[in-house]
Amino acid sequence: MDVALQLAVENLLARYVHALDDDRLEEWPDFFIEDGRYRITTAENLGRGLPLPIIYADSRAMLRDRVSALRHANIYEAQRYRHIVSSVLVERADAGVVRATSNFQVARIMHTGESALFASGRYLDRIRLGETQRFEEKIVVLDSRAVDTLLAIPI
Amino acid sequence: MDVALQLAVENLLARYVHALDDDRLEEWPDFFIEDGRYRITTAENLGRGLPLPIIYADSRAMLRDRVSALRHANIYEAQRYRHIVSSVLVERADAGVVRATSNFQVARIMHTGESALFASGRYLDRIRLGETQRFEEKIVVLDSRAVDTLLAIPI
Amino acid sequence: MDVALQLAVENLLARYVHALDDDRLEEWPDFFIEDGRYRITTAENLGRGLPLPIIYADSRAMLRDRVSALRHANIYEAQRYRHIVSSVLVERADAGVVRATSNFQVARIMHTGESALFASGRYLDRIRLGETQRFEEKIVVLDSRAVDTLLAIPI
Repeated sequence: MDVALQLAVENLLARYVHALDDDRLEEWPDFFIEDGRYRITTAENLGRGLPLPIIYADSRAMLRDRVSALRHANIYEAQRYRHIVSSVLVERADAGVVRATSNFQVARIMHTGESALFASGRYLDRIRLGETQRFEEKIVVLDSRAVDTLLAIPI
Repeated sequence: MDVALQLAVENLLARYVHALDDDRLEEWPDFFIEDGRYRITTAENLGRGLPLPIIYADSRAMLRDRVSALRHANIYEAQRYRHIVSSVLVERADAGVVRATSNFQVARIMHTGESALFASGRYLDRIRLGETQRFEEKIVVLDSRAVDTLLAIPI
Repeated sequence: MDVALQLAVENLLARYVHALDDDRLEEWPDFFIEDGRYRITTAENLGRGLPLPIIYADSRAMLRDRVSALRHANIYEAQRYRHIVSSVLVERADAGVVRATSNFQVARIMHTGESALFASGRYLDRIRLGETQRFEEKIVVLDSRAVDTLLAIPI
């Protein structure tokens, strides 16, 4: 096991979720390479080979558009999120690229103070190594199809 | 602190929960040595020194039997699980063996899409070191006695 | 990244939450330096710059008083807690001191066996390095103001 690599990947994931939970959404696209891919799908869809993700973006520009849309919808202030990430498995893929699989749970805290488990699932990531690690691809595989992600912040 | 050892233990725990959450139950016995012990108990029972665990196995063969029973019961497809593991403390025990204590939470996602916290507790593990780390003993200490583990996948 | 430092901080956080979840509250003050500060506040209060934390202590003596009060109130045995901590970011601050930011979720398990997400949020820690790492300051930033922390064990 490459200790430094393992911790570099865990560090990227940690910075990623803190940016989301702190409402620093404008930083979100910078966690991806310029033509990075982001999609949200469900375990059910992935298992059946269904091609259509719930959300799909394949460039930073699309991610920025999504942030703008969320800011415009102006619903974010009514809720908070808290990500927990664990069980990060790292393996080398191509030169300068690793795959990482991890588990996540997201709690949503409503304006009223009520909290609930909002979503759980796996991150399937391809990470480009460098001075700064960035996602080449991030696939969010939700355990449940009953997650309303349309107006949600990124996961 | 032995950095490589810490990460080796965390890696074992990560591979273990991913196998369970991915429904690769047939791989579960291989995380134990041939005469490995697995039991599920509750904090209440452990605190009172009550000897009877909820579930007990002391060989890979018994673990395989349990997997067969679960497959036969055919209820697994109706639900998913997602494990989160954190706060892993490692200490050396006997030669070639470490003890590890960690916290876990398991979310259960029903066929309907509903999610809920299913179980929480501690793993008390004895791990045999080697080329591949394996559990000599894994004690799952549930926080609550109100967990229906009879038909559940392993925790 | 300083691998040993990262794991030393994660180890401190792990020992801290295991002490709480194991009901070893008397050990809690020892995780702080003699004049260590502990406070619980909410994200809302922190964002508005409101000075008043929900709970405040600035010495081990005050922490010990709180433990005594909790033991006297004698309500702890009716409930259990389980902390999950993830996404630990460490950065050097002053000489011999690091800042650490992490995410947590706490499940509460009632005497009846019911479990629920009790609290979530961030730990903002200042940690004094040494033979034993200790908290100079630990700020618990709750995501929700609707958490009844008065009679709760420390978070």
